[in-house]
This record gives sequence, structure tokens and C-alpha cells, in this order.
Amino acid sequence: MGLPDPAGALALIKPSVRAQTAYTLQAPAARRKLNQNESPYDLPAALKHEIMARAVALPWHRYPAFMPDALQQRLAASYGWQADGVLTGNGSNELIQATLAVTLDAGDRMVAPSPTFSLYRLLAGVFGARYVGVPLRMDFGYDVERIIETAVRERARVIVLNSPNNPTGSALPEGAVARILAATDALVVADEAYQDFGGPPAIPLLATHARLVVLRTFSKALGLAGLRFGFLLAHPAVAREIAKARLPYNVNAITLAAADVVLDHPEIRDEHVRTIVETRECTIARLAALPGITVYPSAANFLLVRFRTLPARRVFQRLHGDFGILVRDVSASPELAECLRISIGTPDDMDACMAALTDILEG
Amino acid sequence: MGLPDPAGALALIKPSVRAQTAYTLQAPAARRKLNQNESPYDLPAALKHEIMARAVALPWHRYPAFMPDALQQRLAASYGWQADGVLTGNGSNELIQATLAVTLDAGDRMVAPSPTFSLYRLLAGVFGARYVGVPLRMDFGYDVERIIETAVRERARVIVLNSPNNPTGSALPEGAVARILAATDALVVADEAYQDFGGPPAIPLLATHARLVVLRTFSKALGLAGLRFGFLLAHPAVAREIAKARLPYNVNAITLAAADVVLDHPEIRDEHVRTIVETRECTIARLAALPGITVYPSAANFLLVRFRTLPARRVFQRLHGDFGILVRDVSASPELAECLRISIGTPDDMDACMAALTDILEG
Repeated sequence: MGLPDPAGALALIKPSVRAQTAYTLQAPAARRKLNQNESPYDLPAALKHEIMARAVALPWHRYPAFMPDALQQRLAASYGWQADGVLTGNGSNELIQATLAVTLDAGDRMVAPSPTFSLYRLLAGVFGARYVGVPLRMDFGYDVERIIETAVRERARVIVLNSPNNPTGSALPEGAVARILAATDALVVADEAYQDFGGPPAIPLLATHARLVVLRTFSKALGLAGLRFGFLLAHPAVAREIAKARLPYNVNAITLAAADVVLDHPEIRDEHVRTIVETRECTIARLAALPGITVYPSAANFLLVRFRTLPARRVFQRLHGDFGILVRDVSASPELAECLRISIGTPDDMDACMAALTDILEG
Repeated sequence: MGLPDPAGALALIKPSVRAQTAYTLQAPAARRKLNQNESPYDLPAALKHEIMARAVALPWHRYPAFMPDALQQRLAASYGWQADGVLTGNGSNELIQATLAVTLDAGDRMVAPSPTFSLYRLLAGVFGARYVGVPLRMDFGYDVERIIETAVRERARVIVLNSPNNPTGSALPEGAVARILAATDALVVADEAYQDFGGPPAIPLLATHARLVVLRTFSKALGLAGLRFGFLLAHPAVAREIAKARLPYNVNAITLAAADVVLDHPEIRDEHVRTIVETRECTIARLAALPGITVYPSAANFLLVRFRTLPARRVFQRLHGDFGILVRDVSASPELAECLRISIGTPDDMDACMAALTDILEG
């Protein structure tokens, strides 16, 4: 079909948006999927059936609850906070978007480590704000003093701390969030998507710090990436303001039911986390024994590795093409030259990954 | 628990946000729910079970597709457009948000009828843009010439046309969207959430107009409000830009499966639409025979009515308190003084509503 000339329409799109590269993910099919930091473990079938039985009984033609009060109460009880300081989201991405929407005006500065999850920078750009990246140390550890200095110098309105940090795996040291809160005037957003796997949680600081916002997700340790559920914890007065930028009916009725059922079974999460952390530690030790590879410390469910003897791109391609293993190639970023990010899969996935890397590096 | 003083945190929230009243909905329980323009008909149980069987087989621990290609193809085929011009969303609200995010800068003007769906104004405010409302005629019909004049005078960057319009039910006349496109330079967003129930569709104009964006939802005629699914149709080059403001993995895996199954059964939608439109016409005729009430023309699945002899607030309260019928009180808006909005429910719902109104107005 012949299409009309879009020039007039494109002239109405903001130049800053047109200049932006879309967040996309080329994800070819692969036997072993180690590219998105997902849990390798689906919910037990019995639990899925329990959730589906609840779902069928729901009125699908009715909007979900405006505020899912009972679920907020349960999240508050599970995570040690109060229900009116809980906001639920269609994944925690939606809640970081809402948090930045209510704080960042054109020209404002948002400080975050560099490298970190790329969405923060994209969203800051949408709001016309400037992302100021604070380099991590050589071993990708957090440089807390430099974050504080930069935030003070730049008069940052928001500081986003992803701990453990994607894609490096680095966790903030104990006490760092409290120090950053004390030394700056910024809103501190602690994105704890991976906190179940390691590093200190920021949640206990909520009781004494109104400038702290904590984000959590069910997409990683809780194994619900496909159902999209995240939540935010903050001072109730702050949560009320952030809620204004959240769309109504943002979490669908089935996901709300699933989150409720999953909260009944912390033992499943705990067992999966234990296995993933054991597998991570074992994989770190085995990778460290391979020639030509640097493995960085990780408190998350993924590892950042640097290849010293082969181009990372070539390793990525061989892993996928020859072994059916899909990892994330992050080597295009200068700070991550020759690096790949590998999600922790099942022990069997990691055995296959080790065998493949051994073949690629030694073969 | 004692909470910290939030003053320092609230100082970091944009003044424009703090000044804003949150979009909320007080929705007390009611036997008959005629307040949200939902379909009164849930999906048949067999179809819900079919969807749940598909859902259980999905890997919940994996993110949904980045772009649900197969579903975009099916939507394109069903609605007469091309797949690379289709964007899916967590409800169509998310897609109007993304559309405004990529177009509206601080100070830009967005023209829309007044009154209309309140979310447009709220979102324009989030982006620092100015909402310019164009009053509808006395009978709430669209004033197309005045929309054009206002858009030209204000150099509107975006015009949002909800047709049929919430909360008035007014549809744009045949040919109006083409005239507005021809006479202005704005991006024209046709929100067709209620178009299944009446009024001309704007979709055929996509083939010749790149400045047109059409929004559709599965929340109304298709009866999936609880599952959150909407989509957008636009020139592929425009859709690509709007996609940049959409969060990744915005539609959950179960909803994607449900949308796919529902597309297999247009006969269910058609039958529900036929029944709802018949019920609407019958209700209009019966309401018109009651004393002290004005019923406005409606092409949607709801009716706007004005009470001439009793305060609308009082009628609202009696409907709910004495008869268990929840409608929407829109009378706080000056343009809608003494008006209530009543969704079209089942014939039985409308019988109950008529009996209640008869009692209230004549009793």
C-alpha cells in the first residue's frame, strides 16, 4: 500500500525524541536464554493453576481496583512498610517513570552511576532533564564519595541508585544510602530490582527518611517477568504525589491476583534465590579459572565478564551460533569494552555455558 | 509508626504536580455498576478457560515479546491497517500518554473539546503544555468549525478528538476528521474507545493522512477492561517515534494471549454491541418520557442526562443508597451542571434504573 509522506507529521515530534535511539532488544530465539536477567524458574504448575482458577472467577469486563488496597496491605506487611506508602505498577519501570515525571523539569539534573540501567537516562531525556553519570570504580564498585560530590556540585534533584547495579552486578556498600541521603538534598531512588540476590536493602531507612523512594519488582527473584508487576515504597505524602503521574488501572486484574498468590509462598522465592546465588558463586569460581577472562564481583543474578584475548562480539556470536546460548552483548559502551553480561540460569545452563566458553577461549 | 517530616521531599516535587488534583475514582460497591462505561458482558466462560489454558503453558518467568509481531499482524488485518503502524499498550491510556510525551513541550497547546475525557488535560499538564478546550454546542454536539478556528489561532500542536466523546456521547459528524486534518497542521489524535457503538471511524483516513493517530481499546465493546489492552494505529514512521516513549514490556503475556483469542471471535463483540446499542436506544426513549429530565443524543455505551427539577447529586445518592445503582456524578463541572452519566448495562440493569428514576422523579 502506498503511504502518505510523513514529513509534516514528523515535524510535530519533539526534536529530542527524534534524535533518540529507541530502546529495543534484538532477541533471537535461543535454547538457553541468559540475556534478560530473568529467573530460570517458572512458578510451579500447581500455583499457576491456582492463580488461573482465581482469574477465571474475576469479572474481566470490569476495570481492576483503582488502588488495590488489600494487596498494598500485604506488600506493606511483607516488606516492612505501611500500606499508604505503597504504589503498585505494571512493572517497576512504570514507577520509575512516574517518579521522574513528578520531579524532573527541563534542565534539572539526575545523578546515577555509569554504567547503569539505560532506561533512567532515556526517561530523563523524555522529561528534558540532564543525566549526569558518576563513573564506577575500575572494578565497577560504587564510588559513594564521588556520587555525593557530583550530586552536591550539580544540585541534583534526583539520584538513582540501582543496587545491585545492572549491568555490573555491583551492590552499594552497607550504609551508603544513608550517607547519600545525609549529604545531599536530592530525592534518592533506590531501584532494588535485584536486591533479593544480594547487597543491603534500603527499606529500613524509609522509617527515618522521607526523601527515599524504593523500587522493587516481581520480575526477577519472584519469577513473574511475563506478568509485569512492580511496586514502590515511600513516605505516604511522597507516594501520593508520584501516584498523580501513574495511569489509572495500570495493573491488570490477573496480575494483581497472581501477586497476591505469590506473596503466600515466600518459600518458593527463597529456594530459587538460594539456588541462583549458589549457582552464581560456583560460576564465578569456574569462570575465574578460564584463561583470558575477567569476572567482576556480583551481588545480582547475572555476571559481567570481560574478554582479554578475544573480541566480546565474537564470543557473543559463537555462544549463540554454535552453542544456542544467548547472553547480552554490552560491549558497545566504551566503559564496557569487550564485556558481556551473562544471566545466571539453571546449573545445567551454566554447565553448558562453561563448556562453550572453555571451547571458545581454549579451542 | 512515627513518620519523618516530608517537607524536604515534597519540595522536590514539581509545583505543577503538587497543585494537581489526583485522578481518582471513589467507587463504592453497588449491585448494579453503571459508572465506568464497562461492558456489562464478561467473556463466555469457555473462552476464559481457553485463554487460561494458553496462559498456563506460557513461561511466566520470561519477559513478554518486545514487539508482539503476530498480534500486531492480526490487529492490522482486523482493523484494515499495516502491522508496522500498530502499537500495543497496557490500555489505550498508555498510548495517549506516549503520543503526548513525544509531541508536547512546555508551552505547547493541545486542543480538545470541552468537556471531554479528563485524562487528556491531566497528561498535557504533566508535560507542561496548555489544554485549550473548545466548548461543545448546547446539545453537546461537536462544533467542528470552532475546533478548526481554535487550533489554527492557537497553533495547536495536537488535537485530541474523543468520538464518541466521554462523558457526552457525542460523535463527530461524517467527514469531520478529514476537514480538521485539511484545515490544520496539528497531529490529530482520534480516541475511538467507544467507536464500536457508533459514529464514523477515522481508520480509513490513515491511508492518506500521516498526521492522524487512531486509538482503540479492548476495554469497552470487547469486554476486557480488567486485562488492560489498547492499541494505536498510525503511519509507521509516526508509530516508531511514539514507541520511544512507551515502556518496554508494557503488555503482559496473559493479556497478549487473551487479545489474540478474542480476535478469533468478532461475533461475540458484534452480538454484545448489537444488544448494547438496542438497550441504549430503548433507554433513551424511556428516559425521554420521564418528567424533569433531558437525555442527550449518544453514539456510545453510556448516556448523559440532565435533571431539571432535582439536584443531580441527590439523584445520584438516591440511586446508590436506595436502589444499589452506581452511576457517575459529573455535575461538579460547570458545563455539566445537574448531569449524571449512566453506562448502558444489561436490559435488566436498565429496567431497574428506569424504575428507580421513575420513583425518584415522580415519587
